[in-house]
Amino acid sequence: MALARWIRISTEIRWKNPWWSYCLDRYRLSTGYEGEYHYVSTPGSAMVIPVLEDGRIVMVKQYRYLNRRDSLEFPAGGVQEGTDAATTARNELEEETGYTAKEFLHLGAFNPFNGVTDEICQVYLARELSAGDSRPDVMEEFERVLLSRDDVNSMIANGTIWDGMSLAAWCLFLKRGVEL
Amino acid sequence: MALARWIRISTEIRWKNPWWSYCLDRYRLSTGYEGEYHYVSTPGSAMVIPVLEDGRIVMVKQYRYLNRRDSLEFPAGGVQEGTDAATTARNELEEETGYTAKEFLHLGAFNPFNGVTDEICQVYLARELSAGDSRPDVMEEFERVLLSRDDVNSMIANGTIWDGMSLAAWCLFLKRGVEL
Repeated sequence: MALARWIRISTEIRWKNPWWSYCLDRYRLSTGYEGEYHYVSTPGSAMVIPVLEDGRIVMVKQYRYLNRRDSLEFPAGGVQEGTDAATTARNELEEETGYTAKEFLHLGAFNPFNGVTDEICQVYLARELSAGDSRPDVMEEFERVLLSRDDVNSMIANGTIWDGMSLAAWCLFLKRGVEL
Repeated sequence: MALARWIRISTEIRWKNPWWSYCLDRYRLSTGYEGEYHYVSTPGSAMVIPVLEDGRIVMVKQYRYLNRRDSLEFPAGGVQEGTDAATTARNELEEETGYTAKEFLHLGAFNPFNGVTDEICQVYLARELSAGDSRPDVMEEFERVLLSRDDVNSMIANGTIWDGMSLAAWCLFLKRGVEL
């Protein structure tokens, strides 16, 4: 069964900050119901699962201000104007971990927060890595953490990894069944 | 290594809609750097993975306006004022699928969109289900879909399931290794 489409009546950017825009649409359903949709609009993002030759996974630990807690995540970032998700993946990998990769494999995509944002996050596997120095920007402090696949799985099970986008990316990685 | 904490200087609600608030904090790093953090504040959410006695998983298909696409997801919703995540889980399960459950098991929690929101989503497994009628609210139209575990995994691999929160919840479910 195809679900009913919603018709956009109007759209408005209420507030724009350097990272995303607060938008407000008015829409109409086929029933005649009209409503408001408030949402976060972004140009998309990219997340990278970097895998070393010995099978270990590269993650980054960073302080997450909004929950006042350290968080272990895969390198990721928002797509900047004039660039694309694949370039973002390369840049974020290098900025956050110092690694560059010869091979990027697209694993899939998801919307991290479906009711609230139009953002689509493209997920990549990065292989054939070479180590270098990370270059975080002024607000960022990253600690590179190398983990076995079993470590990642345990840290998901025990709640150490609580970043939803990293959980979603890991799920894509596991289910795509990429041979390492 | 403990990462540096950020100090909040001020906080302000810029805009409040019925679902979330657009907030703006000013913060200071230990380096003296001061910046602005724009974010979506919510009272949290709950997501439920309902498992039938025969092992099939209950998902809901709904139209996602922000990406103009149908989406297959686990029942979920925002925590309403004066209630909590466990109650939200029960209510959303019944509203979206018609099922009620005798057993709820807490699987873990995650932040779906770590850079942008303070929301924490609590994830539950629901068992001992009894079927009833779904009661969507006026904006919602749900189609109940019953899937085997293998179906869910295939639909993740082929991109049919692209809801990040459902991917994250499924990852928690798989890694918690709950016996069914």
